Amino acid sequence: MTESFFHSLMNPKSIAIVGASNNPMKMGTMHALSILKDGYKGKFYPVHPIEKTVLGHPAFKSPLDLPEAPDLAMLVIPSQHLLPVFEAFGKIGTKYAIVITAGFNEAGAKGAILEEQLKALAKKYGIRFVGPNCMGIVNRAISLNTSVSPIVGKPGKLGLISQSGTYVAQTVDYLKKRGIRLSKAVSVGNEADINIIDVLAYFGEDNQTSAISMYIESIRDVKRFLDVARKITPHKPIIAQYIGGSDAGGRAGLSHTGAMAGKDYLYDGLFKQAGIIRVYSVEDLYGIGWAFATQPKIKGNRIAIITNSGGPGSAIADTCDANGCEMPPFSEELQKTIKPLIPSHAPCGNPVDLTFALDMKVMTHTIPDLVMKSGEVDGIVLHGAMSTGFLAAVFPHLSELMPGVTLEDMIKGSTKDLTDSVQVPFKNNIPMTVSSFFDRADQYTQEYEDNDIPVFDSPEKAAHAISALVKYKTICDRKSYQPPLELKTNDTAMQILKQAIENNQSALDEYSAKQLLASYGIPIPNEILCHNADETIAAGKKIGFPVVAKACDPSIMHKTDSGLVHLNISDSKSLVNAYHAIQKSTGRPVPVLVGKMIKGQREFLAGITFDEQFGHCVAFGVGGIFTEALNDVSYRVAPLSDSESEEMLNDIRSSKLLFAYRGMLAVNVKSLAGVLSILSKLPLLHDQIKEIDINPIIISDAEPVVVDALIVLK
Amino acid sequence: MTESFFHSLMNPKSIAIVGASNNPMKMGTMHALSILKDGYKGKFYPVHPIEKTVLGHPAFKSPLDLPEAPDLAMLVIPSQHLLPVFEAFGKIGTKYAIVITAGFNEAGAKGAILEEQLKALAKKYGIRFVGPNCMGIVNRAISLNTSVSPIVGKPGKLGLISQSGTYVAQTVDYLKKRGIRLSKAVSVGNEADINIIDVLAYFGEDNQTSAISMYIESIRDVKRFLDVARKITPHKPIIAQYIGGSDAGGRAGLSHTGAMAGKDYLYDGLFKQAGIIRVYSVEDLYGIGWAFATQPKIKGNRIAIITNSGGPGSAIADTCDANGCEMPPFSEELQKTIKPLIPSHAPCGNPVDLTFALDMKVMTHTIPDLVMKSGEVDGIVLHGAMSTGFLAAVFPHLSELMPGVTLEDMIKGSTKDLTDSVQVPFKNNIPMTVSSFFDRADQYTQEYEDNDIPVFDSPEKAAHAISALVKYKTICDRKSYQPPLELKTNDTAMQILKQAIENNQSALDEYSAKQLLASYGIPIPNEILCHNADETIAAGKKIGFPVVAKACDPSIMHKTDSGLVHLNISDSKSLVNAYHAIQKSTGRPVPVLVGKMIKGQREFLAGITFDEQFGHCVAFGVGGIFTEALNDVSYRVAPLSDSESEEMLNDIRSSKLLFAYRGMLAVNVKSLAGVLSILSKLPLLHDQIKEIDINPIIISDAEPVVVDALIVLK
Repeated sequence: MTESFFHSLMNPKSIAIVGASNNPMKMGTMHALSILKDGYKGKFYPVHPIEKTVLGHPAFKSPLDLPEAPDLAMLVIPSQHLLPVFEAFGKIGTKYAIVITAGFNEAGAKGAILEEQLKALAKKYGIRFVGPNCMGIVNRAISLNTSVSPIVGKPGKLGLISQSGTYVAQTVDYLKKRGIRLSKAVSVGNEADINIIDVLAYFGEDNQTSAISMYIESIRDVKRFLDVARKITPHKPIIAQYIGGSDAGGRAGLSHTGAMAGKDYLYDGLFKQAGIIRVYSVEDLYGIGWAFATQPKIKGNRIAIITNSGGPGSAIADTCDANGCEMPPFSEELQKTIKPLIPSHAPCGNPVDLTFALDMKVMTHTIPDLVMKSGEVDGIVLHGAMSTGFLAAVFPHLSELMPGVTLEDMIKGSTKDLTDSVQVPFKNNIPMTVSSFFDRADQYTQEYEDNDIPVFDSPEKAAHAISALVKYKTICDRKSYQPPLELKTNDTAMQILKQAIENNQSALDEYSAKQLLASYGIPIPNEILCHNADETIAAGKKIGFPVVAKACDPSIMHKTDSGLVHLNISDSKSLVNAYHAIQKSTGRPVPVLVGKMIKGQREFLAGITFDEQFGHCVAFGVGGIFTEALNDVSYRVAPLSDSESEEMLNDIRSSKLLFAYRGMLAVNVKSLAGVLSILSKLPLLHDQIKEIDINPIIISDAEPVVVDALIVLK
Repeated sequence: MTESFFHSLMNPKSIAIVGASNNPMKMGTMHALSILKDGYKGKFYPVHPIEKTVLGHPAFKSPLDLPEAPDLAMLVIPSQHLLPVFEAFGKIGTKYAIVITAGFNEAGAKGAILEEQLKALAKKYGIRFVGPNCMGIVNRAISLNTSVSPIVGKPGKLGLISQSGTYVAQTVDYLKKRGIRLSKAVSVGNEADINIIDVLAYFGEDNQTSAISMYIESIRDVKRFLDVARKITPHKPIIAQYIGGSDAGGRAGLSHTGAMAGKDYLYDGLFKQAGIIRVYSVEDLYGIGWAFATQPKIKGNRIAIITNSGGPGSAIADTCDANGCEMPPFSEELQKTIKPLIPSHAPCGNPVDLTFALDMKVMTHTIPDLVMKSGEVDGIVLHGAMSTGFLAAVFPHLSELMPGVTLEDMIKGSTKDLTDSVQVPFKNNIPMTVSSFFDRADQYTQEYEDNDIPVFDSPEKAAHAISALVKYKTICDRKSYQPPLELKTNDTAMQILKQAIENNQSALDEYSAKQLLASYGIPIPNEILCHNADETIAAGKKIGFPVVAKACDPSIMHKTDSGLVHLNISDSKSLVNAYHAIQKSTGRPVPVLVGKMIKGQREFLAGITFDEQFGHCVAFGVGGIFTEALNDVSYRVAPLSDSESEEMLNDIRSSKLLFAYRGMLAVNVKSLAGVLSILSKLPLLHDQIKEIDINPIIISDAEPVVVDALIVLK
């Protein structure tokens, strides 16, 4: 298990650090201070060539002088001096290291060589390490923090994995001010050894961690990532931000950790396939992650809104509505129980708008509790809980007005026992998110946050967070993942490919491509390859008019624009004309494929693409003339299970086309999904296949028929 | 001019308030405190039935007892007591009022009556008033604040108009902590008299206000809003959030200000037509608004990114890229000037990533100035400027380490003169937005904000803000608005409509509808209405095969699903068959429309819809079988100028279909836009027309042809 070694790294009983001194402005010292001051109870060994003591602890000239092999070595020294020190730890038997130092793969060719040497040393001595070019690790279970920013206080339940050190270091104060608490965090840096997937696997099994947020610039082993993530997501939510899909973003990322960025749409498909909630800002990475880490699992999409102001109430309603939630009007019974609690004209039908109300107990305890107990909703978004922060904002002049009374007295006087309010979601096992314009200066914000209820600084964000919980429910409701059924190679396909390779073809001709697909059960039209006009006449009669006639040659990849396709031919004479027209267009004899004319208004595309990073991926989308105009295509990593194929169909924006529509039958989704499942396995069965492009798949009545196909060989 | 009266209301020389007392927990007192304490220099007259003095000022028993007619009356008393007091102000000659009191239109039938009575009194005495059910006004030019929350300090340049009082009152502290400063603000409440359009017109001409943010739940007079807004947006940006499009949002809004919410897609079209930047959260309403209010106008979409960390740099790049910006790699020349300033391995090609750099002057002054002067970019997004906030976050233990040195000393010691840094954008006249995880605890954040450079708490938000500036540039680049050219009614159209009305038709039959459209120059196929089989034969010959045959009767609105349409008929025999088949389907004799078969793969829709709130609107979108699946439709308020029609074409997601595409010609956009322009004027010319539905418009080669049309009568 990968987890056990990483558990050891995250739980060292002793740490040696090289690079810390008594100068607090040095990076090494900042890292050491966090280890020393944030509550870690293990042993601490500074290594320093000159100083006798570092930060009050006896220093050692070299790792070789240490009284024991520390469990973990931290290195924060210039890259050109790093290797001998790293090796010294290897020699004394240290098995885990964190290499903070930058100047490796991310810094060009020389750095890349250094990184290879580092990896070789690690291998030689059996050292597993995080970094280089990272900010370290955090394990709040043992109060261990090796980053540069102090982290103290109550541990949280959110695990953070980041390919940017900034998001473990520069944001500590930011998180504190938003009441967001981590369980564990790892800045993985260049991932020369331990990578985000190792950390993910470990966080997946970590009881201290209830949700995992990942900042991703590149995934090197996509298949393993998918395997690991899809085991975790059914029981523990993963939230991910992927950055690097743009040209400039990619340029930035490459120089950042030395890893290549990938295509945004492939990451998008990968996250969906793995059941990962994608977010588009670091704020959501933390905030939505924190909502997941703290709140009970949501059981449906019915949301109640409780507010003290119409504007925020409406904003929550609109945002929830746009993100898959319902705000059902309350039953008369429930309204009757709420009505006496609020001003006479205040609405109580969902939203409940208390208007300007200063009785916070009714708003934060009585009504939420009533609403949760009613069974009419699955979650609550609350806006307007405020007390001390509001007072401080509104009454700066208090003592002028009420001589002898200070604002501090007033605030202290209005501090209340909020136990009931902060327990509501957990006692009812129903999630709640809160919106407040008053930050931790307000007692409500502070106590909500400190008791695991997320508070957002806008109504829209609180609504987005509850909507994310609802989205995760649909992920948990998916059929449990079953590996794709095995597909067996068949002789027809083998023979077609063998022949093409022998002919040095870079692609199969259309006829062969479709025959290959058909040999695996993919539906194609009845069609015959003809080598002269007479053969076309016979074919036309056999197939039955109307037919299509197309030039068929492996060198012709794009037929539509060049008059090589003749559609809807209704008789033999026209067919012969079409045959000759094709010969004339090409200027050389080419076989002509005569096939049944397939009619249908709905056209899709499917395909297999190859990406250096992702390997083979499956594409499905709207085809025909709308292909480029809509660019409505969904991607997944191959191969696909049947349920993954069905999900993928519904992932396009135009998925309404799959249902009964404008007098057309509902598409046979099983059959269409079957095409994707089979396609997704073909590159595994036949390693000669590089890419497959099917466009269009015409829906004839309800059935998909592959009308054109291109198979590109390696 | 509406502006002048509102100017008087916003600049009173004296204010009377009814409802303030000496109890600071009363709403009236809170409002009075803001007037008294925030710097307003005018006269202040409390009116109170019992108290001798209120907040230290002599109180008057009734408005009638006041020594003069105050310029402005503020009323914060229960609704049942309001009218006589309001009338008393009328009697003494006060011309402006703010009615804070709630319990009017938003509170059901009784409240609605009260609001009518209030309006009648106002009319009787010539009083113009804001409210009821509002939070008051703010005019920082004269330090006037009538809201409940104190606002002091340097005035800003952002004007705020809100249909939610919360966004003028509850967010004051929120804005302060984000360094966002207002010029003026108006909480309009129920808009019984003065409405958001009055305020908008005034803000449009107000020199103190550089950008206008509007929180909107309902616009009652859409046409006037459009007129006023489109005069402002070419020279002053308007940012708007519209809330209420969802069912629950609408329910909330109705009970909030008593106004009906409208269809989200109509608001979306209205904002685009008016050149308004739409945002979807109150955070963006303030933050994006603040960026507009402070930054120089952007001249292009080329953005430079300067960062001290790869993660945020990449996030800015991706976000900018997704929102219409370019991040051009810097020229070698520029890179050469930057390279010596940053660590040797740090990238300098855009993004410039200084990596972990503590020389903030290079990052915040030298490099931004170089980059702006290069002429290679139009804007900058900066991440990583930090000093005192960073020190405070990282060195809580400083004094333990360095006896005698306190953190406060260190912070004070690191406080610098940032004049050069905060002047960079203004000296170069190039906009800049900043991202920082340290709030106003950091000197950089504080001085940036206090010197009109917006700081956002995430890289994505800073990127969004600069992207919004770029979007506004495209609005300013639009052709200046010219009123739609006049269209003259013609006899054919008059005759068709007269006939239909005489026949008591609720709609025109297809033939008449298309003849009406054709009479205004909208292209339709050559077609003939036939009443027997022989006529169809003659028609077929005259028109030329292939033709279509369709049942044509005003009572038949949906033909496609019921076998009443026969396409692509190639000879007389088939045409006669089609004629008889139609008669059989209807079971009664119906005329048959024989028309030229129009072929083309691209199908659009156009139409005129009628909405109670918006009046007649124009729709344009993808038609044919994709109509519902894509729901790719754009709306505008009728009538349209020619340039508005052309813009509308490009507003659909699938606008690629308009260009040369897959071997098809580029659509004749002038001709297609012409269809929209003409359509948009028809309901004005003919008040019998309620709605028009054209679907499809087939693009035949490059030319649009209206193939089916329905005109619904009132």
